[in-house]
Amino acid sequence: MKSLGIDLGGTKIAAAAVEEGKILDYHRVDTPRTGIEDVLDSMAAAAKAVLALHPDIRAIGVGSPGPIDFTRGMVVFAPNIPGMENAPLVSGLERRLELPVVLENDANAAGLAEHLYGAAREVKSSIYITISTGIGGGMVVGERVLHGKHGLSGEVGHMTLQPGGPLCGCGYHGCWESLASGRAIAREASFSYRRHVPTVEAFKRAQAGEWKALKVIDNAAYYSGLALANLLKAFDPDLFVIGGGLSQVGSFYFDKVQAAADSFCQGFGRVEIKFAELGVDAGVIGAASVAAGEA
Amino acid sequence: MKSLGIDLGGTKIAAAAVEEGKILDYHRVDTPRTGIEDVLDSMAAAAKAVLALHPDIRAIGVGSPGPIDFTRGMVVFAPNIPGMENAPLVSGLERRLELPVVLENDANAAGLAEHLYGAAREVKSSIYITISTGIGGGMVVGERVLHGKHGLSGEVGHMTLQPGGPLCGCGYHGCWESLASGRAIAREASFSYRRHVPTVEAFKRAQAGEWKALKVIDNAAYYSGLALANLLKAFDPDLFVIGGGLSQVGSFYFDKVQAAADSFCQGFGRVEIKFAELGVDAGVIGAASVAAGEA
Repeated sequence: MKSLGIDLGGTKIAAAAVEEGKILDYHRVDTPRTGIEDVLDSMAAAAKAVLALHPDIRAIGVGSPGPIDFTRGMVVFAPNIPGMENAPLVSGLERRLELPVVLENDANAAGLAEHLYGAAREVKSSIYITISTGIGGGMVVGERVLHGKHGLSGEVGHMTLQPGGPLCGCGYHGCWESLASGRAIAREASFSYRRHVPTVEAFKRAQAGEWKALKVIDNAAYYSGLALANLLKAFDPDLFVIGGGLSQVGSFYFDKVQAAADSFCQGFGRVEIKFAELGVDAGVIGAASVAAGEA
Repeated sequence: MKSLGIDLGGTKIAAAAVEEGKILDYHRVDTPRTGIEDVLDSMAAAAKAVLALHPDIRAIGVGSPGPIDFTRGMVVFAPNIPGMENAPLVSGLERRLELPVVLENDANAAGLAEHLYGAAREVKSSIYITISTGIGGGMVVGERVLHGKHGLSGEVGHMTLQPGGPLCGCGYHGCWESLASGRAIAREASFSYRRHVPTVEAFKRAQAGEWKALKVIDNAAYYSGLALANLLKAFDPDLFVIGGGLSQVGSFYFDKVQAAADSFCQGFGRVEIKFAELGVDAGVIGAASVAAGEA
């Protein structure tokens, strides 16, 4: 079924007409920093640009950052977009577009897209992990994204892996995100070099063999491996799919993550890890898939 | 549907005729320490004692400790029962009883029983945790027990919560089981008092206000709360059901676990915990439910 997917990001809003995982038409606008009404207007404008080419589309799916209140169709909060506290995305877009709108968490949407059409298309259950500035996730069993009682399912970035560890954006210490996200790597590298070292530079220095950077990278890989091993022991999915900015670093980093995960799973089972295949398109494809009722 | 459940334990084998979660007849024998053939003979004898009263039963379910190879119908290993390495329970019992046999992990079976007929009967998804000498678990969504790719789903006792922590029976350090099981509490209490202190005594001393024992108990509750919080963030089940020997300690201990869990989940969601309701019967009821195809 053809449907419209909208991916709300911190800097860009993408809308696309999607049919069975293929993007037919695509439109992108900047994300306003001026409040929820402007965000809704821009999302509607991007959607209308695509709907004009596909007047037969009857269902819209939206992927948004932040925890979602699925019952009320609201984004609870999204720290990177001003004005997104208890944001009524479903009612705001339905009023503007006069079509039914379904809301999903962005990592869940991307995980669903990878599960249906990407790296996990041949397995029954997968956990999608996005490692960028932060760490998020989505769990898919069969063709369904798990939401959980509070809509928290997949908030794996905030599992505590080192009690009393580094402070996380969520207010707790020692979350996976505080130990192994892009932001965490930049923080630790900057501390080690006593000046600002961005994530990309930390990886370059590690690949060049600098021990200070290697220690930071190895530590992050250790905790990512530990997190995947814990998820294997609790849930045992067929496959872990890794997306997000850090997946671009490729095997130099993820061979370390795989080795760390395996080191925690001797006698249990092998941690199967694949890189995401749909790239930035996973967001709109997943959002459209939710709308198409494929979720 | 009426079916037969067999619960294989480290000291006792129980067989019961069960219909919609109710035990109709029950037979119990000791678990032989003399190898797999004797274990199979005793299981068959217990089963036959019940089947003689219920010749209409056509399906048998078995709950066994240890990781299960679901494809081959074997117990991979069960440390507390001699001779249980790659034990062919399904074929061994089908030959002796001439009825179809379905094998399930004992914690999964108990979790299913609690989900269908016990503490979690009114919710859609639950995670059952058994805290005794060790820590095991079972995850139920809808009316199905999750198995996972390697049959590991629910092996939550071996999630690493304190890297480099105490050595666990599984060979790794800092597993939940190594930090908060009955055995872990006895180990830490014995260390603190410089003599052997069994788990029950440690709880008694803590309830009497002895600070050495309280510190041990509080530490175990902290890690159990942490584990439940991590599971909430990853899967967000409707309910956690706590069974096993330690659940007998009641609210003195589990109020601490609840407080610890909640302290990790401010801004996420409340960790709902209930005690198991079916007691030792959960094993046979769950095993019978698996056989009845209710799983």
